[in-house]
Amino acid sequence: MSLVVQKYGGTSVGDAGRISNVARRVVETRKAGNDVVVVVSAMGQTTDELIELATQVSSRPTGREMDMLLTAGERISMALLAMAIRDLGVEAASLTGSQAGILTDSTHGGARITAIKGDRVRQYLDDGLVVIVAGFQGVDPASRDVTTLGRGGSDATAVALAATLRADVCEIFTDVDGVYTADPRLVADAYKLDEVSYEDMLELAGAGAGVLMARSVEFARRFGIPVHVRSSFHDGPGTWIKEEVMEEAVVTGVAHDTTEAKVTVHGVPDQPGIAAKLFGALAADGVIVDMIVQNVSTAGHTDISFTVPDEHLEKAQSAAEAVLPELQANGIDVEANIAKVSLVGTGMRNHPGVAADMFAVLAANGINISMISTSAVRISCVIDAARCTEAVQALHAHYLEKEPV
Amino acid sequence: MSLVVQKYGGTSVGDAGRISNVARRVVETRKAGNDVVVVVSAMGQTTDELIELATQVSSRPTGREMDMLLTAGERISMALLAMAIRDLGVEAASLTGSQAGILTDSTHGGARITAIKGDRVRQYLDDGLVVIVAGFQGVDPASRDVTTLGRGGSDATAVALAATLRADVCEIFTDVDGVYTADPRLVADAYKLDEVSYEDMLELAGAGAGVLMARSVEFARRFGIPVHVRSSFHDGPGTWIKEEVMEEAVVTGVAHDTTEAKVTVHGVPDQPGIAAKLFGALAADGVIVDMIVQNVSTAGHTDISFTVPDEHLEKAQSAAEAVLPELQANGIDVEANIAKVSLVGTGMRNHPGVAADMFAVLAANGINISMISTSAVRISCVIDAARCTEAVQALHAHYLEKEPV
Repeated sequence: MSLVVQKYGGTSVGDAGRISNVARRVVETRKAGNDVVVVVSAMGQTTDELIELATQVSSRPTGREMDMLLTAGERISMALLAMAIRDLGVEAASLTGSQAGILTDSTHGGARITAIKGDRVRQYLDDGLVVIVAGFQGVDPASRDVTTLGRGGSDATAVALAATLRADVCEIFTDVDGVYTADPRLVADAYKLDEVSYEDMLELAGAGAGVLMARSVEFARRFGIPVHVRSSFHDGPGTWIKEEVMEEAVVTGVAHDTTEAKVTVHGVPDQPGIAAKLFGALAADGVIVDMIVQNVSTAGHTDISFTVPDEHLEKAQSAAEAVLPELQANGIDVEANIAKVSLVGTGMRNHPGVAADMFAVLAANGINISMISTSAVRISCVIDAARCTEAVQALHAHYLEKEPV
Repeated sequence: MSLVVQKYGGTSVGDAGRISNVARRVVETRKAGNDVVVVVSAMGQTTDELIELATQVSSRPTGREMDMLLTAGERISMALLAMAIRDLGVEAASLTGSQAGILTDSTHGGARITAIKGDRVRQYLDDGLVVIVAGFQGVDPASRDVTTLGRGGSDATAVALAATLRADVCEIFTDVDGVYTADPRLVADAYKLDEVSYEDMLELAGAGAGVLMARSVEFARRFGIPVHVRSSFHDGPGTWIKEEVMEEAVVTGVAHDTTEAKVTVHGVPDQPGIAAKLFGALAADGVIVDMIVQNVSTAGHTDISFTVPDEHLEKAQSAAEAVLPELQANGIDVEANIAKVSLVGTGMRNHPGVAADMFAVLAANGINISMISTSAVRISCVIDAARCTEAVQALHAHYLEKEPV
């Protein structure tokens, strides 16, 4: 008998009919002889509706109460799913994050899982029940307050629970068929990958592939949990994320991200400590910085560029402006309309020419590169957002058309 | 400084605007120098909507999951209220029934409060916060499952919390102005009582006055908590329910109840043990029995009549029919269209003629009485439901017009 952890997102449990469909799928898995733990998100629009209510009663809701409010969402979907499963003749019980022993730090709205006790989950499994656990939520053991895990939180709950319970597989059911070589909305020829390594998936997630966030992939990698990303609307196989993949392509996929903005600080003296001051000030204001590029020094001065999430642009700008005198810099430039286009592939390690090749493909299409950042298994270029689709299509055609390189 | 427990029902927190109004009232109470604990129900239609969702996914939802589902309702209203209060510059925090330490038995959907720990409530009060507690919900310490308290549960939460915290007053905010001498929808001259004793209120509640259920009044009486039933829509005083009332009227109010049905078992042998068998069988099936009347015996046989809530009629009938042979009874009659009309007043103790007087009033109006039941401070008559309004009007006119008798 295997232990399967399944996670269903908000779209998969969007209404009563869909909840009944999920129940049928869970019951099939159970009747195939598996122990099943199900992690659910809130129903479709519930979270947005609750946030709207909060804005109606408060101009600045606190994190504690916002988390109390939002966790009502999974409470509803998990109870309904447990009922629907029982209606099909299989015993089931739902548990909140707190009841399932999902312990977190105290960061309301973006808490990290610190430990999972999981004894009630194990007890219910021993009793032969299907266990439904609320995704996205936990409890801070210090304050005994309920917390939420922020973006991708339900996936994190599922993978962390799978690790704690030593599950055989963690299945992430979603509204796409799996992990694609590029976003199929941009590239008609993009195809689903049968499998992808943890490392490539981490890079793809970091480069903007939205199907699974890096935090969940990292957790799965650390504990060696195979993750199966698949569609909640049909039974076909999706993409397996695991340690060893059979066919190691040079380029696994093309990812893109249009949710970042670029800031450039001009004319900074090329001296030790300047970068530390700048990024120290940004960190102090909670700005998340992605790419950082420092140009070659000219006459003892240089330019430093970095990218931040669009929603951090304003505070990044004011934090950087505040330290301008101290940096003895000339000024700041901001560019909101940028795109980051990335090639990801573990095989790049052994193919040193990929970066030059990528720049050539972009150049051949007349696309200008304004920033470059590389890791051992990823190359990212920042370009004009207006050219993003073209760039992704050209790179996919070059590296991934028909067969991976 | 006083400690005030306030309870707001579903209508009072029906939308964002009303929640903001409740927040203003709470803040006024706090700024007047009181410690404040607020108990809230789910927003207006939330509970009905959740029940509708449950029926869509399951033909027979279990009590455990139904309670898990429904408790999402107060979670939403309490978090929103805490936010709205903070928005007015007063520190506030919300607690679920479980977090507030409201312990219950394991009867899902109709749990009884067995104890209140309340240490988090006290801690937050000591920290200077307004504390919002979810009404209607608790936790069964044995299973650690969430429970709901059934009808009138939020009032019970408020009164029990007030007792535990030794509050100075428990204010029940509702959509009526207070306790009336009769239902104002039936009797145009009915007027609000300034105060009413626990004992009279218990009888009024038991006789169908819907403003506050007997379980909450009983709790208040036992712990000597003054309860102030008042409108959530204006600031005027309502009705105080307390031990000693200044002016003890012979008749405090006329109550009526059209939600019961009458069952008569005919031709029962007048022998010891017969009633025990009949009502034992009813109790075993969970039938709640209100009035019981046994007629004078004729030729060694008698009739037993009793009333049950409408929704228990079917199971009462089948339970009684099942024991008919054992009872050697002739048969069963059922009457669904009945009304119970009651006079309540502690002063009756010293006025033995009230019952005869009441029967005379009904007779003068040509209203036939089919069952009578009395306590020291209440007289109830079962009549045809079609004559209920007439009976209440006639009795109110006789006993309560202008000045109480």
